[in-house]
Amino acid sequence: MPELRKDPIIGRWVIIATDRAKRPDQFSCLTNENPAEMKPCPFCEGNESSTPQEIYALRPKSTAPNGPGWELRVVPSIAPFLRIEGELERRGKGIYDLMNGIGAHEVIIETKEHATDITELSDEQILKIITCYIDRMLDLERDKRFKYVMVFKNHGWLAGGGKINHAKSQLIATPVNPKRVKEELVGARQYFNYHERCVFCDLIKQEIETKDRVILDLDGFIAVAPFAARFPFETWIFPKTHSCDFVNLDMEARLNLGRILKKVLLKLKKGLNDPPYNYVIHTAPFRRQKTGYWKTVDYDYHWHIEIIPRLTRVAGFEWGTGFYICPLTPEDAAKFLREVTV
Amino acid sequence: MPELRKDPIIGRWVIIATDRAKRPDQFSCLTNENPAEMKPCPFCEGNESSTPQEIYALRPKSTAPNGPGWELRVVPSIAPFLRIEGELERRGKGIYDLMNGIGAHEVIIETKEHATDITELSDEQILKIITCYIDRMLDLERDKRFKYVMVFKNHGWLAGGGKINHAKSQLIATPVNPKRVKEELVGARQYFNYHERCVFCDLIKQEIETKDRVILDLDGFIAVAPFAARFPFETWIFPKTHSCDFVNLDMEARLNLGRILKKVLLKLKKGLNDPPYNYVIHTAPFRRQKTGYWKTVDYDYHWHIEIIPRLTRVAGFEWGTGFYICPLTPEDAAKFLREVTV
Repeated sequence: MPELRKDPIIGRWVIIATDRAKRPDQFSCLTNENPAEMKPCPFCEGNESSTPQEIYALRPKSTAPNGPGWELRVVPSIAPFLRIEGELERRGKGIYDLMNGIGAHEVIIETKEHATDITELSDEQILKIITCYIDRMLDLERDKRFKYVMVFKNHGWLAGGGKINHAKSQLIATPVNPKRVKEELVGARQYFNYHERCVFCDLIKQEIETKDRVILDLDGFIAVAPFAARFPFETWIFPKTHSCDFVNLDMEARLNLGRILKKVLLKLKKGLNDPPYNYVIHTAPFRRQKTGYWKTVDYDYHWHIEIIPRLTRVAGFEWGTGFYICPLTPEDAAKFLREVTV
Repeated sequence: MPELRKDPIIGRWVIIATDRAKRPDQFSCLTNENPAEMKPCPFCEGNESSTPQEIYALRPKSTAPNGPGWELRVVPSIAPFLRIEGELERRGKGIYDLMNGIGAHEVIIETKEHATDITELSDEQILKIITCYIDRMLDLERDKRFKYVMVFKNHGWLAGGGKINHAKSQLIATPVNPKRVKEELVGARQYFNYHERCVFCDLIKQEIETKDRVILDLDGFIAVAPFAARFPFETWIFPKTHSCDFVNLDMEARLNLGRILKKVLLKLKKGLNDPPYNYVIHTAPFRRQKTGYWKTVDYDYHWHIEIIPRLTRVAGFEWGTGFYICPLTPEDAAKFLREVTV
């Protein structure tokens, strides 16, 4: 059973995912070369028996679950970081705090064809993927043990991608609010308390006025290189209209979000030779009770997607200080990406 | 001129180090393979003219600065993240905050021989390196523009090491307190306010009692695998006696620290096939005025060294959430390292 453990000094929760564990001496042979791709691909249509039973699928009523004929499937991870069964059992061990590693870890198989990247898919298929993200978030919110769902994509080996080279995203539902999410919520609230405006809305307004960090401005969404970027070509996508929660997107907005996401990812792919990347959806936590920090979240938080191409090594200085060094200005990055035609 | 820019939402400072910049399209060819080693090595004795003028050197009086005959040298980085000349000029740009990238970035050349790793050096030489760290911290504290000095080592290409394969450390003096350091200071103070005890002292006491995360316990220092480790084989070294500030180490303690540091690094090297690693010294910030957060730092903070072997890939989930997943328990890591004989 994995454990969630809390650092007693700074309060960061960590998953100790023993179920994935190798023997200690096996860590020494880890390399950063791409491993051989798994064949046949367990995520392709026809190979449904190679995955765990599906949790969610977009398929005609005439087809049977866990058989062919689907358009998109969600299955539990075969090597989950967190386990769905059990109780949280928060407990102490001397000065330490821990709880059972309860959560959900699911894989969204984005297409039945063997596409290796979301950019190869049609706008209509990407709309289905975004709808699936929302459906899974809404479903997991009903589980009272969970506080947050993080939807993310690891594309390419160096970005944490696995041996299955098939277009996919992942989600993890956690019983605690992750540290970074809390920091954003607290920071946005402080700004709101002072200015009575959303910090993200102000940021978007200023970016539209100054233009030099805007990568794309399209149908209600904007992609910008953030002013204090941590990484070269880091890109954030925002809805231009204030909205704290990703699940509130209507069908037209989902289609438009898919279009800008695909365009940005295509620009990265073409301009930077298909780099490894991650994207993560930052949205409001579950708000069953609007109390404490989350009381004002409707006004002061603003969902967005953060895309991080993995082009630089992160060194000791960054880990030690939380102080990132970006070797490219976001203005140069935005200019370069604006000029890549897709 | 590099810039320090502040994220308007979570308040994290980032260095935009434009002086190191490549053209945007050059980022696409970055690989994670070790590049060719620079030859002849500019850090070896006799090649002093290949480095900037020395800032500090341990050398007999009979030898001339920037010539041979030294035991240890400190030179400015040739590609500094921050610049030493100029004023901070804190300023706003709409909602954004920034300042000039003022700071110090120095390289500590640990030996005149072409050793590639601190573990190849004698205890006496490591004592000199630790003394040099302290001397540089004390010197930089006199510069009123700076608030913190971070001393760190990047060993191996994947850990951010450069093309010069010669034993070295680095330091960066910053005009702001780094985010991670602030979090530790605030967390330790909160614990102290509640318990009237140092959280680190309590942690050390519990680790000595339970034993299962202790890697080494030697002459006043203890090396442990932290309870909420972020990475496999992450190791923290603490002085067992309370002390907030690294610069207060006496000569005997410096020698003993060097011994345990070398032993731990040798265990990692032998047990894990010479992995890339980083270490970072976490110490109290400069305390010219003991006010605000730093007022009680003598009682509630406890300096330590964090060592991070770089054996796993960090994926989107970690960046997105600040929520790390460690695939090995610290108990297993400590047991493995205890059993590696050096």
